[in-house]
Amino acid sequence: MTKLVIGGAQMGPIQRADSRALVIDRMVALLERAAQAGVEMLVYPELALTTFFPRWYMTDPAEIDAFFERDMPNAATAPLFARARELRIAISFGYAELTPEGRRFNTAILTDRDGRIVGKYRKIHLPGHSEYDPERSHQHLEKRYFEPGDLGFPVWRNADVVMGMAICNDRRWPETYRCLGLQGVELIMIGYNTPSVNSQKGAEGLEKRLFHSDLSLQAGAYQNATYVVGVAKAGLEDGHPLIGGSIIVDPDGTVIARAKTEGDELIVAPCDFAACAFGKTTIFDFARHRRPEHYGRITAQVGATVEV
Amino acid sequence: MTKLVIGGAQMGPIQRADSRALVIDRMVALLERAAQAGVEMLVYPELALTTFFPRWYMTDPAEIDAFFERDMPNAATAPLFARARELRIAISFGYAELTPEGRRFNTAILTDRDGRIVGKYRKIHLPGHSEYDPERSHQHLEKRYFEPGDLGFPVWRNADVVMGMAICNDRRWPETYRCLGLQGVELIMIGYNTPSVNSQKGAEGLEKRLFHSDLSLQAGAYQNATYVVGVAKAGLEDGHPLIGGSIIVDPDGTVIARAKTEGDELIVAPCDFAACAFGKTTIFDFARHRRPEHYGRITAQVGATVEV
Repeated sequence: MTKLVIGGAQMGPIQRADSRALVIDRMVALLERAAQAGVEMLVYPELALTTFFPRWYMTDPAEIDAFFERDMPNAATAPLFARARELRIAISFGYAELTPEGRRFNTAILTDRDGRIVGKYRKIHLPGHSEYDPERSHQHLEKRYFEPGDLGFPVWRNADVVMGMAICNDRRWPETYRCLGLQGVELIMIGYNTPSVNSQKGAEGLEKRLFHSDLSLQAGAYQNATYVVGVAKAGLEDGHPLIGGSIIVDPDGTVIARAKTEGDELIVAPCDFAACAFGKTTIFDFARHRRPEHYGRITAQVGATVEV
Repeated sequence: MTKLVIGGAQMGPIQRADSRALVIDRMVALLERAAQAGVEMLVYPELALTTFFPRWYMTDPAEIDAFFERDMPNAATAPLFARARELRIAISFGYAELTPEGRRFNTAILTDRDGRIVGKYRKIHLPGHSEYDPERSHQHLEKRYFEPGDLGFPVWRNADVVMGMAICNDRRWPETYRCLGLQGVELIMIGYNTPSVNSQKGAEGLEKRLFHSDLSLQAGAYQNATYVVGVAKAGLEDGHPLIGGSIIVDPDGTVIARAKTEGDELIVAPCDFAACAFGKTTIFDFARHRRPEHYGRITAQVGATVEV
């Protein structure tokens, strides 16, 4: 059975003025620490290369484009790929993707331990809104800057583990985990940037925000008998706070590693993927217990309909 | 906006030798306590009228039939319905249902505040197995004694709240909550009988069993912005321990009432159903954020298929 040491590379804030080179230096430093800790698969956050720019309303295409990558790897990120290959650490990280056709996605890639990109995921559940909203304490314009992912929820066998990815708000949706669980996923990697303040409910508070993150990640792990890694970009970006709370969750739903800071911080857990088998063959043996004939609404309708 | 005081009537153990009359006396006593606490909707456990008989392998039809109800209400349960009507408390409880056609279901009914049955749910996710399993520490023969529910996941407007029901193992399946959430559910009532010992993993322990119950109920509430009430039959039934841990969860996923014992115990929470609106219109506004075009596997396949 496969064992793999999994790392989460939580990143502290990235200011708008920070260059890609500066960010990549920090990511490589985390990679070096991960190597010393024996990590074989390292997960970085969503939009790891830039500040969380959807908090700003922008109209100038050039200003927007500056946050996007046209190629991956590219000149800026090549040192990260090169060092990962040398250290034989598979990595995943998120970035804003601008395609040759001019399409924009909130994307994450996965490499094998030879530094080759073997998987790409584009965020499906974009939160927020698309136009300036004067009623919010800050903007959350993901629906403005990205289109919803068009690649579904794929899995890949990487380092002999069935891996899937999701991004930030995807983690709150049980559909995400289930689509991956139905493909036998054993490790789900989820980077996020979550504002510490709910832009529509200021009183919610950091503690409740962290609780919701944990709850979603832990339920997804347990209900699909899979490891889940949630990795934050955290701290104060140009005055806007992001939650930390990066965790690694085992297939029983138990948190086995947790970040303590809101800065660049490595969390590590040795994972024995044999642990996925118990849940998948007993209480969550989907073939024996699921009843899709009663789940029709989940795919037949988008929004809620109140008919009583 | 609707406010309603919700109660969970956790029940201590019911021994195999206990009569229906004895059980109904206990249920009425809980109802009286609920009335004193101002409860308007009271939720009893799964299979509230009998011991949790699927722990025993039986072949004699008469022996099996003794645990089932042919009518509801019936002579044994009439006093409960009558007192609920007098006290103007809507109730839900579970029982083993034997239909005129000889079909057997693990069923729950819902009454209005006038004691009329307004809803029926038949358990869809039957756990366990159908034949004697010598490798288990005890049997869990729900698949032997019941067929899967054939009524889907309906909701009813009762006391001006959109209510749905689920039973025991249904609570571990996010599909349950989502099918109800897609109908605007505001209160999900879930009775359960959960053995304190995992029959296939003795080392799991009570604490982990309670954690899994909480995790599932809280995630279901949060991810659908609904109140959830989980109500146990608890304690030592003929030597077989059942977990307690009855809770009431608010639409934020927070536990707002929790049972402290493994006996007959009332938990109460005044619920303001206006609190469901925030989640349903923001982060879990399904119409704006769900992407069923990528959820196809959830209804198209039953079991997991590993293709990588």
